[in-house]
Amino acid sequence: MTHRTGAEQLVHTLLDNKVDVCFANPGTSEMHFVAALDKVGAMRCVLGLHETVVTGAADGYYRMADKPAATLLHLGPGLANGLSNLHNAKKARSGIVNIVGDHSAEHLKLDAPLTSDIKALAGVVSQWVHTSQSASDIATDGAQAVRQACGRPGAIATLILPADVAWSELAAEGSAAVAPQAPKAAAEPAGAAGAHDMARIVQALREDPEHTLILCGDRATRADCTSLVGRIVAATGCAARAEFYGARLERGAGRVALLRLPYAVAPSLAILAKFSTVVLVGAKEPVAFFAYPDKPGRLTAPGCRFLTLSTPEDCPRDALRELCGALGAQSLPAALLARHATDAPAQGPLDSESIGRVLGATLPDNAIVVDEAISTGRGFDALTLHAAPHDWLTGCGGSIGFALPAAVGAAIAAPGRRVVALEGDGSGMYTLQSLWSMAREQLDVTVLIFANRTYGILHGELAAVGAGAPGARAQDMLNLDRPQIDWSGLAESMGVPAIKVADIESLSKALQASYRRHGPMLLEVLL
Amino acid sequence: MTHRTGAEQLVHTLLDNKVDVCFANPGTSEMHFVAALDKVGAMRCVLGLHETVVTGAADGYYRMADKPAATLLHLGPGLANGLSNLHNAKKARSGIVNIVGDHSAEHLKLDAPLTSDIKALAGVVSQWVHTSQSASDIATDGAQAVRQACGRPGAIATLILPADVAWSELAAEGSAAVAPQAPKAAAEPAGAAGAHDMARIVQALREDPEHTLILCGDRATRADCTSLVGRIVAATGCAARAEFYGARLERGAGRVALLRLPYAVAPSLAILAKFSTVVLVGAKEPVAFFAYPDKPGRLTAPGCRFLTLSTPEDCPRDALRELCGALGAQSLPAALLARHATDAPAQGPLDSESIGRVLGATLPDNAIVVDEAISTGRGFDALTLHAAPHDWLTGCGGSIGFALPAAVGAAIAAPGRRVVALEGDGSGMYTLQSLWSMAREQLDVTVLIFANRTYGILHGELAAVGAGAPGARAQDMLNLDRPQIDWSGLAESMGVPAIKVADIESLSKALQASYRRHGPMLLEVLL
Repeated sequence: MTHRTGAEQLVHTLLDNKVDVCFANPGTSEMHFVAALDKVGAMRCVLGLHETVVTGAADGYYRMADKPAATLLHLGPGLANGLSNLHNAKKARSGIVNIVGDHSAEHLKLDAPLTSDIKALAGVVSQWVHTSQSASDIATDGAQAVRQACGRPGAIATLILPADVAWSELAAEGSAAVAPQAPKAAAEPAGAAGAHDMARIVQALREDPEHTLILCGDRATRADCTSLVGRIVAATGCAARAEFYGARLERGAGRVALLRLPYAVAPSLAILAKFSTVVLVGAKEPVAFFAYPDKPGRLTAPGCRFLTLSTPEDCPRDALRELCGALGAQSLPAALLARHATDAPAQGPLDSESIGRVLGATLPDNAIVVDEAISTGRGFDALTLHAAPHDWLTGCGGSIGFALPAAVGAAIAAPGRRVVALEGDGSGMYTLQSLWSMAREQLDVTVLIFANRTYGILHGELAAVGAGAPGARAQDMLNLDRPQIDWSGLAESMGVPAIKVADIESLSKALQASYRRHGPMLLEVLL
Repeated sequence: MTHRTGAEQLVHTLLDNKVDVCFANPGTSEMHFVAALDKVGAMRCVLGLHETVVTGAADGYYRMADKPAATLLHLGPGLANGLSNLHNAKKARSGIVNIVGDHSAEHLKLDAPLTSDIKALAGVVSQWVHTSQSASDIATDGAQAVRQACGRPGAIATLILPADVAWSELAAEGSAAVAPQAPKAAAEPAGAAGAHDMARIVQALREDPEHTLILCGDRATRADCTSLVGRIVAATGCAARAEFYGARLERGAGRVALLRLPYAVAPSLAILAKFSTVVLVGAKEPVAFFAYPDKPGRLTAPGCRFLTLSTPEDCPRDALRELCGALGAQSLPAALLARHATDAPAQGPLDSESIGRVLGATLPDNAIVVDEAISTGRGFDALTLHAAPHDWLTGCGGSIGFALPAAVGAAIAAPGRRVVALEGDGSGMYTLQSLWSMAREQLDVTVLIFANRTYGILHGELAAVGAGAPGARAQDMLNLDRPQIDWSGLAESMGVPAIKVADIESLSKALQASYRRHGPMLLEVLL
């Protein structure tokens, strides 16, 4: 009789803990885990052709599933390749069971070429790092990793799995799966209502609502929370906003309007200038993405006071309910957005505004928008307010190449919903391998590539940092027009049908055609 | 009067120290460096559309130029994206001046989204890490980084450049470039002849040559060294080999035959079994790439003795000359390989052997072969021995996605020489963005993609680790055939002309056509 291997036990433990999707790019040291997939069954494995697809997909998955997926990465270099999207996932407070293979203990002593300091790399992007020491520890270690990833907020839990631990058989008496404590569903934040500064918050909202802003982040941008925010706004007349970056904003018609703070420093300063009190609901104090020589890093007015209603550890819904209660706003109707899209142009040239309007007019019910249209999409927030109800996911860590992998993960987490990935051509080239995974899994993803053939944002940034007008050499570092990239050709070469659109009418038609069909489609939006 | 910015000073310092190529993917925090490129001039900047292209190109550049290039990476995530090819470069002992932007000191306090622990990431792949503290330090810091990178062996010298250091102007009195000590040319190893175990080496070669192997690594695989190894072999009858992985092997007709140790454990064990003494010339004790449950990690026979003629810190040529002298072999003629290629088939099916033969028969003089054909290319070493003289570069760190970026760097380091990149479809997908840089720079690179539509090596590895025959789920983690990737389409979409070849005749014709034209060309070799 043969017993389970450590790898088989790990797959069992993951499944026992409701982790049943694994984004993977395995190598030799992970072959026993791969073999275990056959024996154990039930784990959905999705192959990415680069680890940044794997980790970005796990981020998108968590945001929509409210529970972690596992990853499977090959040693230090495999982890290294996945780091930047793990960085993004960490900043989004996504939970991931991040499994990284390693050499056997004996082989590590030999300093083979692939040897590297996995723990040091993992530590930069993980809240929890642990190396399994033996097959008999795997059930406990795996369950602990899931528990960490499922916390509130979510966490990157990196479990390092040496090859010899994976291939060793468990002793007979240890072969039963340890029944780990079932993790709390991550959808339900574990903490009690924070209400850290409740009395002062109530006072500010009652006495000076005009200069008080409610700033929502993390889970407070879900509809169950924004509806409460809407009541508070109705009761007091205060303002409300979401952070610029958001793991998942539930928005659109029938919901409360909650515009995001803008990316650029000047408009953020203008918006925030009048507020003397900012109430943080899962949000952080707003700061600029980058430093500029002549601009402040803090976006609020000097002397602005911050009051914390809830942190990401808390349940924002409970905190907002308590605040509603204190304000007598429980039964007030919030102002809900009407659905109207009559302002979308039927034809004309493509620009940021016309694209945003068409997007808002055509978005299907319950779409999931994954937004990395850093330049072109700057105005989409307001232009899509009245679209059909949808979720809006943005990169949270600023590392580009987020949207296409996250779209893969979101589509797997939410079958039956259309995912719309808004992507720049510069960012898209970071993780174009994602298209292959979309084709392989026949995911319902509409990809819009905004082909402006430049790192559009950097032209503005070069000016913003006061570096002057770019000459030929500097231009060469910003522009992608030599040679031009044929995004339709790239997509079709990876099995994704594609179409080039050069005006509003064809964009609108192509969008609607993509929404009707099963599987992915790429629209190359020629700007 | 305005003074130089820190960024301008850094560009000056790099140029003063003969670092005149910069592989880059800059972001906002690097915009002053980008602006400085216009003002200072003379720096050749090559844009990569993902940082793994940037760092891999710097590796390939160093191997052919024998001096470092600079990189320019955007904060922690930009560095993270480049880490796996920095890992490869470190294992190849390549020197790189690795410049990573960071937020300004003030902005770091705000914990903006892109903030991460750059030092921790850099430390894993760098021999030297330093953060510039002010613009007035930049000249010294930059010169020190170059000096570190130019050491013997080469080193990854990471210089972290905060945005405020880059944008600050130097004080008037500090604006002159510090004249740093010119680094030694890296082509000339700095150390004296090592000759660590000279007496015992001479004794072994004289008394038991049949059981003595000279194992060459690092710079000992250059022609000036292999010609000396050939004399020692002629004088004593000992055996000689190169390590499996090699930064740069100068080989082919007119040179000494120096076969590499094979990748797989069993044939390596068979080759090494008879040797009781291995003489290391810049090489390490040979170990398996991976651990396997039932195979040894050390590839030499138990009790094998290792004697060190030179380490990578030493000059192998001096050490080998001294050894020749001790053996009276100075003027013995080494056996040189004749040029013959009559055994190349003119037509027939494509397989590993026929491809290798055609490659050997057609390779132009002084070609640079960058080899990451992990499955298909397993036999190319022997099949190309008699080709025209050429350099052969392999990945040294085992992280896949090495060849295409390294080909970019090699082509820039060695204009006028044809670069031939041998790449698997699995590995190629890791860094396919390299094709765009090849087109942009019109580099003379012939890319062969061996399209077997699988991670071919992993099928063997799955069996080798004893994980059994793969079922459907495991197969899905190894195979790239759903959907098939159209590599010709990918290449053409990024501006690289491409052709599919399905038999030997068309392969041979396409190879020769690519060698005659200027600029890159991709051959999709359908297996």
